[in-house]
Amino acid sequence: MDSFSFVLFGATGDLAKRKIFPALYNLFLDNRLTAPFSVIGLGRRNWTDEVFQFHVKNSLNHFSRRFKEHDAMLDDFLQIFRYCALDVTNSEGYKAVHELILSREKELGILGNRVFYLSVSPEFFGIITSNIEKSGIGVSKGWKRLVIEKPFGRDITSARELNKKLGQVFEEEEIYRIDHYLGKQMVQNLEALKLANPMLQSLWDNKNISNIQITASETVGVEERAAYYEQAGAIRDMFQNHMLQMLMMVAMQSPEHINPENIRKKKSDIMKHLRPLNKKNTAFHVVRGQYGSGEINGEQVAAYIEEPGVESSSRNDTFVAARLWIDDYCWCGVPFYIRTGKRMKEKSTRVVIEFKSPIRDLYEDNKKTAVPNLLIIEISPNESVSLQLNLKNPAKYGKTEPVILQFSAPGKEAPEAYESLIFDTLRGDPTFFSHWEEVELSWNWVQPILEAFKDNTLPLHSYPAGSMGPEAAQQLLAGDGFIWW
Amino acid sequence: MDSFSFVLFGATGDLAKRKIFPALYNLFLDNRLTAPFSVIGLGRRNWTDEVFQFHVKNSLNHFSRRFKEHDAMLDDFLQIFRYCALDVTNSEGYKAVHELILSREKELGILGNRVFYLSVSPEFFGIITSNIEKSGIGVSKGWKRLVIEKPFGRDITSARELNKKLGQVFEEEEIYRIDHYLGKQMVQNLEALKLANPMLQSLWDNKNISNIQITASETVGVEERAAYYEQAGAIRDMFQNHMLQMLMMVAMQSPEHINPENIRKKKSDIMKHLRPLNKKNTAFHVVRGQYGSGEINGEQVAAYIEEPGVESSSRNDTFVAARLWIDDYCWCGVPFYIRTGKRMKEKSTRVVIEFKSPIRDLYEDNKKTAVPNLLIIEISPNESVSLQLNLKNPAKYGKTEPVILQFSAPGKEAPEAYESLIFDTLRGDPTFFSHWEEVELSWNWVQPILEAFKDNTLPLHSYPAGSMGPEAAQQLLAGDGFIWW
Repeated sequence: MDSFSFVLFGATGDLAKRKIFPALYNLFLDNRLTAPFSVIGLGRRNWTDEVFQFHVKNSLNHFSRRFKEHDAMLDDFLQIFRYCALDVTNSEGYKAVHELILSREKELGILGNRVFYLSVSPEFFGIITSNIEKSGIGVSKGWKRLVIEKPFGRDITSARELNKKLGQVFEEEEIYRIDHYLGKQMVQNLEALKLANPMLQSLWDNKNISNIQITASETVGVEERAAYYEQAGAIRDMFQNHMLQMLMMVAMQSPEHINPENIRKKKSDIMKHLRPLNKKNTAFHVVRGQYGSGEINGEQVAAYIEEPGVESSSRNDTFVAARLWIDDYCWCGVPFYIRTGKRMKEKSTRVVIEFKSPIRDLYEDNKKTAVPNLLIIEISPNESVSLQLNLKNPAKYGKTEPVILQFSAPGKEAPEAYESLIFDTLRGDPTFFSHWEEVELSWNWVQPILEAFKDNTLPLHSYPAGSMGPEAAQQLLAGDGFIWW
Repeated sequence: MDSFSFVLFGATGDLAKRKIFPALYNLFLDNRLTAPFSVIGLGRRNWTDEVFQFHVKNSLNHFSRRFKEHDAMLDDFLQIFRYCALDVTNSEGYKAVHELILSREKELGILGNRVFYLSVSPEFFGIITSNIEKSGIGVSKGWKRLVIEKPFGRDITSARELNKKLGQVFEEEEIYRIDHYLGKQMVQNLEALKLANPMLQSLWDNKNISNIQITASETVGVEERAAYYEQAGAIRDMFQNHMLQMLMMVAMQSPEHINPENIRKKKSDIMKHLRPLNKKNTAFHVVRGQYGSGEINGEQVAAYIEEPGVESSSRNDTFVAARLWIDDYCWCGVPFYIRTGKRMKEKSTRVVIEFKSPIRDLYEDNKKTAVPNLLIIEISPNESVSLQLNLKNPAKYGKTEPVILQFSAPGKEAPEAYESLIFDTLRGDPTFFSHWEEVELSWNWVQPILEAFKDNTLPLHSYPAGSMGPEAAQQLLAGDGFIWW
């Protein structure tokens, strides 16, 4: 690992507090930050270094599972943090930032490697990168990297515009677009499951798999984020990014060698082979939903249109389900089903791979109990891999019944998504970030859905809060002879 | 289920006490004996019905997990038992047996279906069946079935002779040869694993599997059975019957339909394709061992030749390992390794299926941690199915490491082997019994080993009690690039 400066835009914000500081602290405690480094927080507020350090300490107290008061490591860690007030739109202000970066580099013996982490509202992405260029803080003898949070555009046009702006200052190899789902342990394992397990790799195709289901269901509603969510909906908030990234991770072919470039290529290949939607067929493959009132865990909850900040006439999507086809030699004929929504029955993100069943059950008298073989990767809240098989139960006269072979990850000890992603940024491994090509292809694929939603050419199905989405989402699979697992 | 008479030869013996009475009692309690039935115990001792019933009650008290004193069901059960003293070699004595059978049939409304269960020393098998014929008790309007315990002969010649004798009285379809390993839950599941699970069936061949290992290790020594064991050795006691039956169950192809006849045919097919041994190559594929003194669970134990009843010059085998090849399209190129022995490190019967690994590990820097995919079926003492996969551990910088997906059967509740086998006898399902063809092919295959042992053309390797057998058994696999799992 090289020495580096970590320049954090939005250092007084929510994400920094909840995720970035705890992640840096864990990396520090684990001795994974092995070279000299400096952290420079930037924000609008007029804080001193001491106030900022106190703020970081406070954040760790609330959000780090490893916080201990009066800890020598903690003090050492906080000493690394410096603060500079900055109006990001004012290019003059970047001079002071530049001076601070340089003086800390000199002081600590850092070789000019700089991470610019944009934990700010997307409207500032363009102006910040432009000012990074103008001020010269992007120029040094070391490398520079840009870390950028979602959303990356709100449709294909705006995403391209944003990327063009970033591209004037940063090369694609320098841009680390965070999709925090790619930082999750079991999402990263979607790759390893195939690549490190020859027996599963043998099965990973349309000869053995009948369909693949990706679910990300939440029990929470829109919470305090109505202003944002009304503009995004489930399609932009979850589907275009996280859900399609999981699809790529599940479906990608094995590369000759495992390296970031090859993985990205194989992921893009999946998006390129995704059968495009059009005005005619979108309604056939996509289900839009919005939650009505209902009951979750014994508690009455309001309908989406009754939420604070939501117009009572809103036709925003809080649920999306879709059937996708990957038209390549490996997957042709295998439907991929994706669904995501708020105010659903359970909080769960999981991938279910359903294997084919022979036309005739060899144990004919068992028709009612025989079930398909399933490989279930639970991504959250638990992290597990399960395999559903049929075994004989001698207590039932030898009839077969489903049993589950399971491995559960020990959970608490594993690094969180941000820890893993920040570490990868620092060591320059872009494998688990969204490459522009993936982002562009994703927006391109969802574009007909965005338009259908906007033009209301797709019905908006209501579903009761606490259900697994509208009946139409069941029908989407029922027509193909499947059910959601 | 038809009504039946259960005529038990050796009713005062050890097997009846430990296994047969508890098995019948469990079947009775579970209402699996749905038709009228009579049990007639035969033995040399001069017991009355009452003494016999008291003996059965006592047996249940010691060996049934469901025994309760003063239980109405227990009293009902015991009432069914009758006793007749019999010297099995004296044909005159069978008249009284015949009368008792007939009177009970009349009394209980039983339609002449008769099970003759030979729980006696094998030297009496021939004379008993011959007397069954002479006395006419094998002739009735119902069906008759013969249940016969191991050993079935002690080589190919004696097995053929015995079978010829039985064949003069019983048809092959009437003979139920008990191999109690075939009654074990997880041995029966060796069949279901493939046949009820399309995803495993896809993998069940030489394209995906590198080798299969069958282990039955015991920690006990020869105990009080030296007289028998000196004549048998591990090859006759375990290998020719239990181990080869497990081999057939693992390797058999899927039949068009599941029925006893098809399963038997598929099992025999495996034996027919087993590459024969000969004088030249036996030493290359077979390892013979005998335990020396050693330590098991912290306790010093004697060498085999120091055991009571064993000659100090004995060259008897207490351990056998072998490499077998099935030369059919499915398995050619896949070695099957079998080992069984006494006084080994652990008590365990299991089948391990090792899947092929690609020549080059895709995660090259993980060479030390990547392990083959294994499917492990533990038959006893626990009953479980496990799958070993490689997953990334993010706490270790994303390196892969082996994890186990496991299903453990709930154990205590499941019927024991004898329960299941007696039930199958009564309903006339011979699937999990050894067909003559299987027995003959098995003896035929082991015959060169028997001769090599007898002629001492194979080294007798000593292994310390408490080890996993002689070093030569490790070498057997090491030469092929494998290790015992």
